[in-house]
Amino acid sequence: MAIAWSAKASSMEALSLSPPMSPPVVLTQDELKRIAAYKAVEFVESGMVLGLGTGSTAKHAVDRIGELLRQGKLSNIVGIPTSKKTEEQALSLGIPLADLDSHPTIDLAIDGADEVDPHLNLVKGRGGSLLREKMVEGACKKFIVIVDESKLVKYVGGSGLAMPVEVVPIWWATTARKLQSLFEESGCVAKLRKDSKGEPFVTDNGNYVIDLYLKKEIGDLQVASDAMLRITGVVEHGMFLDMATTVIVAGELGITIKHK
Amino acid sequence: MAIAWSAKASSMEALSLSPPMSPPVVLTQDELKRIAAYKAVEFVESGMVLGLGTGSTAKHAVDRIGELLRQGKLSNIVGIPTSKKTEEQALSLGIPLADLDSHPTIDLAIDGADEVDPHLNLVKGRGGSLLREKMVEGACKKFIVIVDESKLVKYVGGSGLAMPVEVVPIWWATTARKLQSLFEESGCVAKLRKDSKGEPFVTDNGNYVIDLYLKKEIGDLQVASDAMLRITGVVEHGMFLDMATTVIVAGELGITIKHK
Repeated sequence: MAIAWSAKASSMEALSLSPPMSPPVVLTQDELKRIAAYKAVEFVESGMVLGLGTGSTAKHAVDRIGELLRQGKLSNIVGIPTSKKTEEQALSLGIPLADLDSHPTIDLAIDGADEVDPHLNLVKGRGGSLLREKMVEGACKKFIVIVDESKLVKYVGGSGLAMPVEVVPIWWATTARKLQSLFEESGCVAKLRKDSKGEPFVTDNGNYVIDLYLKKEIGDLQVASDAMLRITGVVEHGMFLDMATTVIVAGELGITIKHK
Repeated sequence: MAIAWSAKASSMEALSLSPPMSPPVVLTQDELKRIAAYKAVEFVESGMVLGLGTGSTAKHAVDRIGELLRQGKLSNIVGIPTSKKTEEQALSLGIPLADLDSHPTIDLAIDGADEVDPHLNLVKGRGGSLLREKMVEGACKKFIVIVDESKLVKYVGGSGLAMPVEVVPIWWATTARKLQSLFEESGCVAKLRKDSKGEPFVTDNGNYVIDLYLKKEIGDLQVASDAMLRITGVVEHGMFLDMATTVIVAGELGITIKHK
């Protein structure tokens, strides 16, 4: 299903800044996220092995799955969480969990994204869980991405926000320098992600994250992917190429669904 | 300099099994390693930034550098160790150390290898330090590899011993399965490396090692490298392609040196 695909970040920013007493027709960004998440959960069937995403949008989907299990509208679900945080959330909701090693094929994964380009390529990992997410979502028959329309971009990096790369801690500055010089022509600036205390942010896998900020397109994404992976010290990057099978976008004018 | 390049593993095995009282003309494998290491250290000059390798052969080179510093025959050396073990050895010898972030360009690295093919492609990492070794040796102007002749192989994997791949611990069995199936046509068997207690071997970076055992050649090595790196969960592999600038081989008939 084709949808009009223009970057609406500016209008969405205006929306999220709207005062709390705005007319009921105007939905907050979080409400849009929940709408997309609930729509995605309609694709869940009893008996499925599910990849459970991480982040503020995916959280709504996990909540909803827990609710439907409690209500008896879903049964016999097994969830594979993509982070420690999602694992805790799912456990608190009573969703039975397993791991990828025992369930190498996943029926359906539902997760958010930081950016979605017109070809359904994604940027993920601003939440810090890109590696597990990529392992789970690379093992899925079907991968539904849920976003509010502020996440739509014309090209990967087009939001001006971070494209994250998970790296080994040792000699991270050398790895950051190599990443920055790889995308020099796109005006790349590489920065070590810090936590709220100013210490390096540490992933669930004990690694660091280098955030890449791009001013222009980086060209062929598969070539860019291989070039990053060839840098010793890079564990994984946040571009999810050719992985999403469906993207559900919640916007001011309702829900749009795009299939691969 | 061209040298005759045939796999002499069988004759070397016989050699290392020779009784301690054998005639003095027959050198042990460790003596051959030391001969190659000392030869390599002849290329070291005062004032150099040096990559210090890891393993039984590289250990001799680090010892020799420490000796020459003590004797005043070398001065103003800075070493970048490729493992915690080498760091400890170098500190005990009084070799001044630094890290790659502060010294992004290294004049010369000296290290052993587990396999050397006719094109000077290497297999490294049976000692478990492949990631740091690759970071250091990828930053070198000159990389001298030191081996005894048992390490010469006709093709990567040709020794029948492990080709190591460093992977993130989570869902390692899934990653191992993907690696094995990648090289299925070469009869690949993937095994998790264990320590002496039967627990998973953990690298300096907190990762696991999957050892790949190959029965046949794996084809184009650069293609194989990219394919491994594209598997989410793979941090780095033990093939060092087009990195060695010089290989010093100590054998029964003396030393041979091959330059790239």
